[in-house]
Amino acid sequence: MAEEGIPGRVVVVGTGLIGTSIALAMRKRGAEVLLTDRDAASLRMAVELGAGQALPDGAAEEPADLAVLAVPPAAVAVTLLDAQKRGLAKVYTDVASVKALPLAQAAQLGCDLSVFVAGHPLAGRERSGPAAAQDDLFLGRPWALCAPPEAKPEAVEAVTALARACGAEPVTVDAEEHDRAVALVSHGPHVVSAAVAARLTVADDVALGLAGQGVRDVTRIAASDPRLWIGILSANSEPVAEVLEAVATDLAVAASLLRDGSEGAAAHVADLLLRGNAGRARIPGKHGGDQKTYAVVPVMIPDRPGELAMIFQAAGIAGVNIEDVAIEHSPGRPLGVLEISVKPEAAERLAEELRARGWSVPG
Amino acid sequence: MAEEGIPGRVVVVGTGLIGTSIALAMRKRGAEVLLTDRDAASLRMAVELGAGQALPDGAAEEPADLAVLAVPPAAVAVTLLDAQKRGLAKVYTDVASVKALPLAQAAQLGCDLSVFVAGHPLAGRERSGPAAAQDDLFLGRPWALCAPPEAKPEAVEAVTALARACGAEPVTVDAEEHDRAVALVSHGPHVVSAAVAARLTVADDVALGLAGQGVRDVTRIAASDPRLWIGILSANSEPVAEVLEAVATDLAVAASLLRDGSEGAAAHVADLLLRGNAGRARIPGKHGGDQKTYAVVPVMIPDRPGELAMIFQAAGIAGVNIEDVAIEHSPGRPLGVLEISVKPEAAERLAEELRARGWSVPG
Repeated sequence: MAEEGIPGRVVVVGTGLIGTSIALAMRKRGAEVLLTDRDAASLRMAVELGAGQALPDGAAEEPADLAVLAVPPAAVAVTLLDAQKRGLAKVYTDVASVKALPLAQAAQLGCDLSVFVAGHPLAGRERSGPAAAQDDLFLGRPWALCAPPEAKPEAVEAVTALARACGAEPVTVDAEEHDRAVALVSHGPHVVSAAVAARLTVADDVALGLAGQGVRDVTRIAASDPRLWIGILSANSEPVAEVLEAVATDLAVAASLLRDGSEGAAAHVADLLLRGNAGRARIPGKHGGDQKTYAVVPVMIPDRPGELAMIFQAAGIAGVNIEDVAIEHSPGRPLGVLEISVKPEAAERLAEELRARGWSVPG
Repeated sequence: MAEEGIPGRVVVVGTGLIGTSIALAMRKRGAEVLLTDRDAASLRMAVELGAGQALPDGAAEEPADLAVLAVPPAAVAVTLLDAQKRGLAKVYTDVASVKALPLAQAAQLGCDLSVFVAGHPLAGRERSGPAAAQDDLFLGRPWALCAPPEAKPEAVEAVTALARACGAEPVTVDAEEHDRAVALVSHGPHVVSAAVAARLTVADDVALGLAGQGVRDVTRIAASDPRLWIGILSANSEPVAEVLEAVATDLAVAASLLRDGSEGAAAHVADLLLRGNAGRARIPGKHGGDQKTYAVVPVMIPDRPGELAMIFQAAGIAGVNIEDVAIEHSPGRPLGVLEISVKPEAAERLAEELRARGWSVPG
């Protein structure tokens, strides 16, 4: 039995990472989930993962409470039209990373927009497909909701309930505003990351050997699936193009200022770096509030089982809450530095506890 | 007493992050370290951190084995000339992020290049100053060495011994080649990161609320100190300008292709994303070898002390070696997902062990 107030019977069209993760989250809340995907192997895997049952090919006996169209942006409108013709559900939503184009196409195709509320859960992974799905993928994440003017209140309620049931925070936003926002904080940075990584195809081994953490971070998302991303970029072309042009202009200007070499020119480049500082500082902290500043306690760790457990045990004994951890591996050596982020007031207590137990903690 | 084969008496000019870290590393190996910095507070802090003794103002009684000039790129040559006039050491090196300009300026000023070997340890932190210094900062990192043609073999030996004593891997490289390499893998990406972050100064709260891990990673290094970086960029202007122009061109072309909107245009944008995949894959893995693929085991963790210790203890009991860890915080909730990277063959064993002990590990 589904928990009260959530859609009890859900159809998920498209069992990729997002569709399967939603299915898993709704199953966990007790909903009945029916799955469909034009790729039979993907559908089978999602069923095996416990995400739900395969939707029978024929017409549904009774419309589900909600159908989630987890398909690429360009496929949303036609999938909606088809689903509505089959009478799959009472209410429909999608999960595409762009919102204006699918809504416009759906209107053009004559879909019933009184029962469609477009959605975009802001969650993802570098891996794709049902195998990477997680029932907690949306926990605490924003879930953008764009209701067309025709949408009935009960449709908005059902999709809002879906987002909440998946653990996300629903954010009502206009479709055009959404698309400009994600161009700025997601789609644009994605192409820039790819352009930096693309330079490395001409790098020699000396250059690659000098690569540090900075270029690794800047290019991490350049490892994503181009097939998925070209669909997103094409469907949000105008806002993304604007961001890319602005970045390209800043970079071209910086290049010519560096070539100029005067002190005034250097001051202009420094100004770009300062604007970078200011923009970076505006990104909210991981916990959704202001960016928190933690103290980092670095500990040298031998690369063997058991060591991390003992370190965290020592932290527990010291009563220190660990906010974040990262391992900085030393290339070519079986050694690493564990960086433990804690509240500033707890740093010295943790460092002393660890030193007292024989770990090397620089002062 | 210094360990055998390492410089026994070292002068460090400039007690910032890098200078103080070298001083700490050499002190740990038993070397006598003398420190100097034109900023008295920075010098005092380095002395208090145990990095060495303050260098007396007058002429040194006897030249040290080695002087490390840990000053900005533009200050290297004049600092070298001054140090050589004072007879500070038998051999000199620097740590600047660019190599061709300081070497050319040193030659122009008439420095004795037979006892100078330029160096660049590839290590750093987002924080700067002596307080951020660590004696293990260089462990396993590359340390580029650029010896001018005049350099005596014993000078090369002394600077190589310094790099090794700090735990780094010396890499002999031509100065111009070094500068082109770091423009590609460090200086260029730095400016690009700043340009992406600079866009966020015009973002509204909706956009900032939709920011995910991707834009956080791309803009992490945009938080660095502009005063430090403008010196580096200005001293390596030509190679950096080339990288920025290439990236700017790729972005401007991508923007106009997106505006074009044809399928052929989309294919060209997809090609940039594919080149991004290829370039990203060329970055060596953290251990210095090929990029290793680990399996990631996600575990839901309550945000309280002791939990991590128990998880790592369970991993130890299962005999699983942990290659990397990261905590994915769920914004707005006291919950997180611990992502444990392990060798693919160990993933299922770890997942089962954790499930058996009551943790939630998605399949």
